[in-house]
Amino acid sequence: MTRIRMSLFTSLDGYTSTTGRSPENPMGEDWGRLTEAYIATRTMQERFGETNGTGTTGVDDSYAAAFFEGVGAEIMGATMFGLTSYPDDPDWKGWWGERPPYGTPVYVLTHTAPRPPIPMDGGTTFHFRRGAIEDVLAEATDAAGGLDVRVGGGVGTARDFLRAGLVDELHLLMAPVVLGRGTRLWDDLPSLDLTHKVTTEVAESGTIHITFAR
Amino acid sequence: MTRIRMSLFTSLDGYTSTTGRSPENPMGEDWGRLTEAYIATRTMQERFGETNGTGTTGVDDSYAAAFFEGVGAEIMGATMFGLTSYPDDPDWKGWWGERPPYGTPVYVLTHTAPRPPIPMDGGTTFHFRRGAIEDVLAEATDAAGGLDVRVGGGVGTARDFLRAGLVDELHLLMAPVVLGRGTRLWDDLPSLDLTHKVTTEVAESGTIHITFAR
Repeated sequence: MTRIRMSLFTSLDGYTSTTGRSPENPMGEDWGRLTEAYIATRTMQERFGETNGTGTTGVDDSYAAAFFEGVGAEIMGATMFGLTSYPDDPDWKGWWGERPPYGTPVYVLTHTAPRPPIPMDGGTTFHFRRGAIEDVLAEATDAAGGLDVRVGGGVGTARDFLRAGLVDELHLLMAPVVLGRGTRLWDDLPSLDLTHKVTTEVAESGTIHITFAR
Repeated sequence: MTRIRMSLFTSLDGYTSTTGRSPENPMGEDWGRLTEAYIATRTMQERFGETNGTGTTGVDDSYAAAFFEGVGAEIMGATMFGLTSYPDDPDWKGWWGERPPYGTPVYVLTHTAPRPPIPMDGGTTFHFRRGAIEDVLAEATDAAGGLDVRVGGGVGTARDFLRAGLVDELHLLMAPVVLGRGTRLWDDLPSLDLTHKVTTEVAESGTIHITFAR
Protein backbone atom coordinates (compact mmCIF):
# COMPACT_ATOMS: atom_id res chain seq x y z
CA MET A 1 0.00 0.00 0.00
CA THR A 2 1.27 3.44 -0.88
CA ARG A 3 2.50 5.45 2.06
CA ILE A 4 3.09 9.19 2.06
CA ARG A 5 6.58 9.80 3.39
CA MET A 6 8.58 12.86 4.24
CA SER A 7 12.06 13.60 5.59
CA LEU A 8 12.98 16.97 7.04
CA PHE A 9 16.04 18.49 8.62
CA THR A 10 15.69 20.50 11.80
CA SER A 11 17.95 21.98 14.45
CA LEU A 12 17.59 21.26 18.17
CA ASP A 13 15.64 24.50 18.43
CA GLY A 14 13.20 23.53 15.69
CA TYR A 15 14.44 25.55 12.76
CA THR A 16 14.55 24.32 9.24
CA SER A 17 16.93 26.63 7.54
CA THR A 18 16.03 29.07 4.85
CA THR A 19 17.96 32.07 6.14
CA GLY A 20 19.91 33.95 3.49
CA ARG A 21 18.60 31.98 0.57
CA SER A 22 19.89 33.15 -2.81
CA PRO A 23 20.37 31.66 -6.28
CA GLU A 24 23.99 30.96 -5.36
CA ASN A 25 22.96 29.47 -2.03
CA PRO A 26 19.48 28.14 -2.73
CA MET A 27 19.09 26.23 0.53
CA GLY A 28 20.15 29.05 2.81
CA GLU A 29 23.21 29.82 4.89
CA ASP A 30 22.70 27.29 7.68
CA TRP A 31 21.84 24.37 5.44
CA GLY A 32 25.33 22.91 5.61
CA ARG A 33 25.23 22.76 9.41
CA LEU A 34 21.89 20.95 9.34
CA THR A 35 22.83 18.40 6.73
CA GLU A 36 26.55 17.83 7.31
CA ALA A 37 26.28 14.34 8.80
CA TYR A 38 23.73 13.24 6.22
CA ILE A 39 25.80 14.46 3.29
CA ALA A 40 28.78 12.57 4.75
CA THR A 41 27.03 9.20 4.46
CA ARG A 42 28.13 6.66 1.90
CA THR A 43 24.66 6.66 0.34
CA MET A 44 24.71 10.41 -0.27
CA GLN A 45 28.35 10.44 -1.33
CA GLU A 46 27.65 7.74 -3.90
CA ARG A 47 24.75 9.68 -5.33
CA PHE A 48 25.98 13.23 -5.13
CA GLY A 49 29.49 13.35 -3.75
CA GLU A 50 32.99 13.53 -5.06
CA THR A 51 34.13 10.61 -2.93
CA ASN A 52 32.35 7.67 -4.51
CA GLY A 53 32.59 4.56 -2.36
CA THR A 54 33.57 6.33 0.82
CA GLY A 55 31.36 7.99 3.40
CA THR A 56 29.96 6.96 6.77
CA THR A 57 28.15 3.65 7.13
CA GLY A 58 26.39 3.89 10.50
CA VAL A 59 22.91 4.90 11.59
CA ASP A 60 22.79 8.03 9.42
CA ASP A 61 23.59 5.96 6.35
CA SER A 62 20.83 3.46 7.14
CA TYR A 63 18.32 6.28 7.10
CA ALA A 64 19.82 7.78 3.95
CA ALA A 65 19.55 4.44 2.15
CA ALA A 66 15.95 3.99 3.29
CA PHE A 67 15.17 7.45 1.99
CA PHE A 68 15.70 6.26 -1.58
CA GLU A 69 13.96 2.90 -1.28
CA GLY A 70 10.48 2.17 -2.55
CA VAL A 71 9.58 5.63 -3.81
CA GLY A 72 7.36 5.72 -6.91
CA ALA A 73 6.60 9.42 -7.14
CA GLU A 74 7.78 12.69 -5.65
CA ILE A 75 6.04 15.96 -4.78
CA MET A 76 7.88 19.20 -4.16
CA GLY A 77 7.12 22.89 -3.84
CA ALA A 78 7.91 25.55 -6.41
CA THR A 79 10.72 27.00 -4.32
CA MET A 80 12.46 23.68 -3.93
CA PHE A 81 12.36 23.18 -7.68
CA GLY A 82 13.69 26.69 -8.20
CA LEU A 83 10.70 28.50 -9.68
CA THR A 84 11.01 31.21 -7.02
CA SER A 85 14.65 31.81 -7.86
CA TYR A 86 14.16 31.62 -11.64
CA PRO A 87 10.55 32.66 -12.25
CA ASP A 88 11.17 34.02 -15.73
CA ASP A 89 13.27 31.22 -17.17
CA PRO A 90 10.97 28.83 -19.05
CA ASP A 91 13.90 26.47 -19.59
CA TRP A 92 14.78 26.08 -15.90
CA LYS A 93 15.04 22.37 -15.14
CA GLY A 94 15.80 22.36 -11.41
CA TRP A 95 19.05 22.24 -9.45
CA TRP A 96 19.99 18.66 -10.19
CA GLY A 97 21.56 18.69 -13.66
CA GLU A 98 20.48 16.52 -16.59
CA ARG A 99 20.08 13.41 -14.43
CA PRO A 100 18.16 14.24 -11.23
CA PRO A 101 18.38 11.71 -8.41
CA TYR A 102 14.64 10.97 -8.36
CA GLY A 103 14.14 8.51 -11.21
CA THR A 104 10.36 8.89 -10.86
CA PRO A 105 7.63 11.34 -11.81
CA VAL A 106 8.11 14.54 -9.78
CA TYR A 107 5.08 16.78 -9.23
CA VAL A 108 6.03 20.42 -8.71
CA LEU A 109 3.37 22.49 -6.97
CA THR A 110 3.03 25.97 -8.44
CA HIS A 111 0.67 28.90 -8.28
CA THR A 112 1.79 30.20 -11.68
CA ALA A 113 0.79 29.01 -15.11
CA PRO A 114 1.53 25.32 -15.56
CA ARG A 115 4.50 24.44 -17.73
CA PRO A 116 4.71 21.42 -19.99
CA PRO A 117 6.32 18.33 -18.46
CA ILE A 118 10.11 18.11 -18.58
CA PRO A 119 11.49 14.62 -19.13
CA MET A 120 15.03 14.23 -17.79
CA ASP A 121 17.64 11.49 -17.95
CA GLY A 122 17.38 8.61 -15.54
CA GLY A 123 13.60 8.29 -15.35
CA THR A 124 12.74 11.64 -13.77
CA THR A 125 9.96 13.68 -15.35
CA PHE A 126 8.95 17.01 -13.84
CA HIS A 127 5.23 17.76 -13.93
CA PHE A 128 3.80 21.13 -12.85
CA ARG A 129 0.49 21.29 -11.04
CA ARG A 130 -1.47 24.08 -9.40
CA GLY A 131 -4.39 22.09 -8.03
CA ALA A 132 -5.16 21.35 -4.40
CA ILE A 133 -2.49 19.28 -2.68
CA GLU A 134 -5.01 16.47 -2.18
CA ASP A 135 -5.56 16.27 -5.94
CA VAL A 136 -1.86 16.33 -6.73
CA LEU A 137 -1.33 13.66 -4.11
CA ALA A 138 -4.02 11.48 -5.70
CA GLU A 139 -2.32 11.79 -9.08
CA ALA A 140 1.10 11.05 -7.58
CA THR A 141 -0.31 8.04 -5.76
CA ASP A 142 -1.65 6.66 -9.04
CA ALA A 143 1.69 7.29 -10.71
CA ALA A 144 3.57 5.57 -7.88
CA GLY A 145 2.00 2.24 -8.84
CA GLY A 146 1.86 0.87 -5.32
CA LEU A 147 5.20 2.31 -4.23
CA ASP A 148 5.44 5.22 -1.81
CA VAL A 149 4.95 8.91 -2.51
CA ARG A 150 7.59 11.16 -1.05
CA VAL A 151 6.90 14.79 -0.24
CA GLY A 152 10.34 16.29 -0.67
CA GLY A 153 9.90 19.83 0.58
CA GLY A 154 10.58 22.62 1.04
CA VAL A 155 9.39 23.18 4.51
CA GLY A 156 6.36 25.25 3.46
CA THR A 157 5.08 22.42 1.29
CA ALA A 158 5.96 19.90 3.98
CA ARG A 159 4.01 21.85 6.59
CA ASP A 160 1.01 22.10 4.24
CA PHE A 161 0.90 18.32 3.95
CA LEU A 162 1.40 17.82 7.69
CA ARG A 163 -1.35 20.28 8.59
CA ALA A 164 -3.69 18.52 6.18
CA GLY A 165 -3.00 15.21 7.91
CA LEU A 166 -1.73 13.61 4.72
CA VAL A 167 1.63 12.26 5.91
CA ASP A 168 1.93 8.62 6.98
CA GLU A 169 5.59 8.79 7.92
CA LEU A 170 7.61 11.82 8.92
CA HIS A 171 11.33 11.34 9.48
CA LEU A 172 13.04 14.22 11.23
CA LEU A 173 16.81 14.53 11.18
CA MET A 174 17.54 16.75 14.16
CA ALA A 175 21.11 17.99 13.91
CA PRO A 176 22.92 18.73 17.19
CA VAL A 177 23.09 22.44 16.45
CA VAL A 178 21.22 25.50 17.68
CA LEU A 179 20.42 27.88 14.82
CA GLY A 180 18.33 30.57 16.46
CA ARG A 181 16.97 31.66 13.08
CA GLY A 182 15.15 30.32 10.07
CA THR A 183 11.71 28.89 9.49
CA ARG A 184 10.06 27.19 12.43
CA LEU A 185 9.12 23.62 11.68
CA TRP A 186 6.59 23.23 14.45
CA ASP A 187 4.34 26.28 14.42
CA ASP A 188 0.65 25.36 14.13
CA LEU A 189 1.29 21.71 13.39
CA PRO A 190 -1.09 19.09 14.73
CA SER A 191 0.21 16.97 17.61
CA LEU A 192 1.58 14.18 15.48
CA ASP A 193 2.34 12.04 18.51
CA LEU A 194 -1.41 11.57 19.04
CA THR A 195 -1.90 10.02 15.58
CA HIS A 196 1.52 8.51 14.88
CA LYS A 197 3.90 6.29 16.80
CA VAL A 198 7.09 8.12 17.71
CA THR A 199 10.50 6.44 17.68
CA THR A 200 13.83 8.10 18.42
CA GLU A 201 17.39 7.06 17.68
CA VAL A 202 20.76 8.78 17.89
CA ALA A 203 23.42 8.27 15.23
CA GLU A 204 27.18 8.16 15.74
CA SER A 205 27.28 11.74 14.43
CA GLY A 206 25.00 12.93 17.21
CA THR A 207 22.13 13.44 14.77
CA ILE A 208 18.79 12.54 16.36
CA HIS A 209 16.46 10.60 14.09
CA ILE A 210 12.81 11.02 15.06
CA THR A 211 10.22 9.02 13.16
CA PHE A 212 6.45 9.53 13.32
CA ALA A 213 4.68 6.62 11.62
CA ARG A 214 1.04 5.58 11.43
CA MET B 1 35.84 23.13 40.64
CA THR B 2 32.25 24.22 40.98
CA ARG B 3 30.19 23.84 37.84
CA ILE B 4 26.84 25.50 37.22
CA ARG B 5 24.43 22.78 36.12
CA MET B 6 20.89 22.75 34.91
CA SER B 7 18.37 20.13 33.78
CA LEU B 8 15.27 21.03 31.83
CA PHE B 9 12.40 19.13 30.28
CA THR B 10 11.29 19.98 26.76
CA SER B 11 9.01 18.52 24.13
CA LEU B 12 10.14 17.72 20.59
CA ASP B 13 8.72 21.07 19.55
CA GLY B 14 10.67 22.98 22.17
CA TYR B 15 8.05 23.66 24.80
CA THR B 16 8.65 23.53 28.50
CA SER B 17 5.22 23.21 29.97
CA THR B 18 3.52 25.82 32.04
CA THR B 19 0.10 25.70 30.42
CA GLY B 20 -2.81 25.70 32.84
CA ARG B 21 -0.73 26.15 35.97
CA SER B 22 -2.73 26.39 39.18
CA PRO B 23 -2.16 25.79 42.89
CA GLU B 24 -3.62 22.32 42.46
CA ASN B 25 -1.49 21.70 39.37
CA PRO B 26 1.55 23.87 39.95
CA MET B 27 3.63 22.52 37.09
CA GLY B 28 0.94 22.86 34.43
CA GLU B 29 -1.28 20.46 32.54
CA ASP B 30 1.31 18.94 30.23
CA TRP B 31 3.96 18.36 32.88
CA GLY B 32 3.11 14.70 33.28
CA ARG B 33 3.63 14.01 29.59
CA LEU B 34 7.04 15.69 29.67
CA THR B 35 8.30 13.96 32.79
CA GLU B 36 6.64 10.54 32.65
CA ALA B 37 9.74 8.52 31.79
CA TYR B 38 11.87 10.41 34.30
CA ILE B 39 9.41 9.97 37.14
CA ALA B 40 9.32 6.25 36.32
CA THR B 41 13.03 5.80 37.05
CA ARG B 42 14.19 3.93 40.13
CA THR B 43 16.07 7.01 41.34
CA MET B 44 12.97 9.18 41.26
CA GLN B 45 10.71 6.45 42.63
CA GLU B 46 13.04 5.94 45.57
CA ARG B 47 13.04 9.66 46.34
CA PHE B 48 9.48 10.65 45.60
CA GLY B 49 7.47 7.64 44.57
CA GLU B 50 5.15 5.14 46.14
CA THR B 51 7.04 2.19 44.69
CA ASN B 52 10.28 2.25 46.62
CA GLY B 53 12.83 -0.08 45.10
CA THR B 54 11.15 -0.44 41.75
CA GLY B 55 11.37 1.82 38.71
CA THR B 56 13.33 1.75 35.48
CA THR B 57 17.10 1.28 35.56
CA GLY B 58 18.23 2.22 32.06
CA VAL B 59 19.59 5.40 30.50
CA ASP B 60 16.92 7.64 32.03
CA ASP B 61 17.83 6.39 35.49
CA SER B 62 21.53 7.05 34.91
CA TYR B 63 20.74 10.69 34.21
CA ALA B 64 18.35 10.89 37.16
CA ALA B 65 21.02 9.54 39.51
CA ALA B 66 23.61 11.98 38.14
CA PHE B 67 21.16 14.80 38.72
CA PHE B 68 21.45 14.33 42.47
CA GLU B 69 25.21 13.80 42.64
CA GLY B 70 27.72 16.41 43.69
CA VAL B 71 25.34 19.32 44.21
CA GLY B 72 26.27 21.71 47.02
CA ALA B 73 23.71 24.46 46.51
CA GLU B 74 20.54 25.10 44.55
CA ILE B 75 19.02 28.19 42.93
CA MET B 76 15.40 28.44 41.91
CA GLY B 77 12.89 31.06 40.85
CA ALA B 78 10.07 32.39 42.98
CA THR B 79 7.44 30.59 40.91
CA MET B 80 9.12 27.23 41.30
CA PHE B 81 9.23 27.71 45.04
CA GLY B 82 5.56 28.73 45.04
CA LEU B 83 5.72 32.42 45.88
CA THR B 84 3.63 33.22 42.82
CA SER B 85 0.91 30.79 43.88
CA TYR B 86 1.00 31.76 47.56
CA PRO B 87 2.23 35.36 47.63
CA ASP B 88 0.44 36.26 50.85
CA ASP B 89 1.34 33.25 52.95
CA PRO B 90 4.41 34.11 55.03
CA ASP B 91 4.56 30.50 56.25
CA TRP B 92 4.70 28.91 52.79
CA LYS B 93 7.60 26.46 52.75
CA GLY B 94 7.51 25.17 49.17
CA TRP B 95 5.89 22.14 47.58
CA TRP B 96 8.15 19.49 49.05
CA GLY B 97 6.87 18.86 52.58
CA GLU B 98 8.96 19.04 55.74
CA ARG B 99 11.91 17.21 54.16
CA PRO B 100 12.66 18.65 50.71
CA PRO B 101 14.84 16.52 48.42
CA TYR B 102 17.64 19.09 48.15
CA GLY B 103 19.63 18.64 51.35
CA THR B 104 21.58 21.83 50.60
CA PRO B 105 21.11 25.58 50.82
CA VAL B 106 18.46 26.63 48.28
CA TYR B 107 18.49 30.23 47.05
CA VAL B 108 15.06 31.43 45.98
CA LEU B 109 15.11 34.43 43.65
CA THR B 110 12.40 36.93 44.44
CA HIS B 111 11.43 40.47 43.53
CA THR B 112 9.42 40.90 46.71
CA ALA B 113 10.62 41.68 50.21
CA PRO B 114 13.13 39.09 51.38
CA ARG B 115 11.89 36.58 53.93
CA PRO B 116 13.96 35.11 56.72
CA PRO B 117 15.65 31.80 55.92
CA ILE B 118 13.59 28.66 56.43
CA PRO B 119 15.52 25.66 57.75
CA MET B 120 13.89 22.35 56.85
CA ASP B 121 14.53 18.72 57.73
CA GLY B 122 17.25 16.86 55.89
CA GLY B 123 19.72 19.69 55.40
CA THR B 124 17.69 21.99 53.16
CA THR B 125 17.53 25.67 54.06
CA PHE B 126 15.59 28.09 51.89
CA HIS B 127 17.17 31.53 51.49
CA PHE B 128 15.40 34.39 49.70
CA ARG B 129 17.39 36.80 47.57
CA ARG B 130 16.47 39.67 45.31
CA GLY B 131 19.90 40.62 44.06
CA ALA B 132 21.30 40.20 40.55
CA ILE B 133 21.55 36.56 39.50
CA GLU B 134 25.35 36.92 39.28
CA ASP B 135 25.47 37.93 42.97
CA VAL B 136 23.18 35.12 44.07
CA LEU B 137 25.26 32.69 42.03
CA ALA B 138 28.43 33.91 43.74
CA GLU B 139 26.87 33.34 47.15
CA ALA B 140 25.59 29.90 46.14
CA THR B 141 29.02 28.99 44.77
CA ASP B 142 30.60 29.89 48.12
CA ALA B 143 27.99 27.85 49.93
CA ALA B 144 28.53 24.85 47.67
CA GLY B 145 32.04 24.41 49.06
CA GLY B 146 33.55 23.10 45.85
CA LEU B 147 30.53 21.06 44.84
CA ASP B 148 28.28 22.06 41.93
CA VAL B 149 25.54 24.67 41.92
CA ARG B 150 22.33 23.55 40.32
CA VAL B 151 19.89 26.00 38.80
CA GLY B 152 16.63 24.16 39.24
CA GLY B 153 14.17 26.31 37.33
CA GLY B 154 11.57 27.24 36.45
CA VAL B 155 12.12 27.89 32.83
CA GLY B 156 12.15 31.68 33.21
CA THR B 157 14.97 31.50 35.73
CA ALA B 158 16.73 28.89 33.63
CA ARG B 159 16.55 31.09 30.54
CA ASP B 160 17.88 34.07 32.51
CA PHE B 161 20.97 32.07 33.50
CA LEU B 162 21.42 30.71 29.98
CA ARG B 163 21.14 34.14 28.38
CA ALA B 164 23.71 35.47 30.85
CA GLY B 165 26.13 32.72 29.82
CA LEU B 166 26.38 31.38 33.36
CA VAL B 167 25.61 27.71 32.75
CA ASP B 168 28.46 25.21 32.39
CA GLU B 169 26.27 22.19 31.78
CA LEU B 170 22.74 22.08 30.43
CA HIS B 171 21.00 18.72 30.32
CA LEU B 172 17.84 18.66 28.23
CA LEU B 173 15.38 15.82 28.58
CA MET B 174 13.44 15.93 25.32
CA ALA B 175 10.33 13.82 25.67
CA PRO B 176 8.98 12.18 22.50
CA VAL B 177 5.82 14.28 22.58
CA VAL B 178 4.56 17.29 20.64
CA LEU B 179 2.86 19.80 22.92
CA GLY B 180 2.08 22.71 20.63
CA ARG B 181 1.68 25.02 23.62
CA GLY B 182 3.54 26.27 26.64
CA THR B 183 6.66 28.35 27.14
CA ARG B 184 9.27 28.18 24.41
CA LEU B 185 12.62 27.05 25.71
CA TRP B 186 14.68 28.37 22.82
CA ASP B 187 13.53 31.91 22.12
CA ASP B 188 16.42 34.40 22.21
CA LEU B 189 18.90 31.95 23.66
CA PRO B 190 22.53 32.15 22.60
CA SER B 191 23.75 29.38 20.29
CA LEU B 192 25.00 27.09 23.03
CA ASP B 193 26.55 24.73 20.51
CA LEU B 194 29.18 27.38 19.75
CA THR B 195 30.41 27.52 23.36
CA HIS B 196 29.53 24.05 24.64
CA LYS B 197 30.11 20.53 23.39
CA VAL B 198 26.84 18.82 22.45
CA THR B 199 26.20 15.15 23.09
CA THR B 200 22.98 13.27 22.36
CA GLU B 201 21.67 9.94 23.62
CA VAL B 202 18.32 8.16 23.42
CA ALA B 203 16.92 6.21 26.36
CA GLU B 204 14.85 3.04 26.23
CA SER B 205 11.79 5.23 26.87
CA GLY B 206 12.41 7.24 23.71
CA THR B 207 13.47 10.27 25.74
CA ILE B 208 16.30 12.16 24.05
CA HIS B 209 19.02 13.35 26.41
CA ILE B 210 20.92 16.34 25.04
CA THR B 211 23.87 17.64 27.03
CA PHE B 212 25.67 20.93 26.43
CA ALA B 213 28.89 21.03 28.46
CA ARG B 214 31.83 23.39 28.51
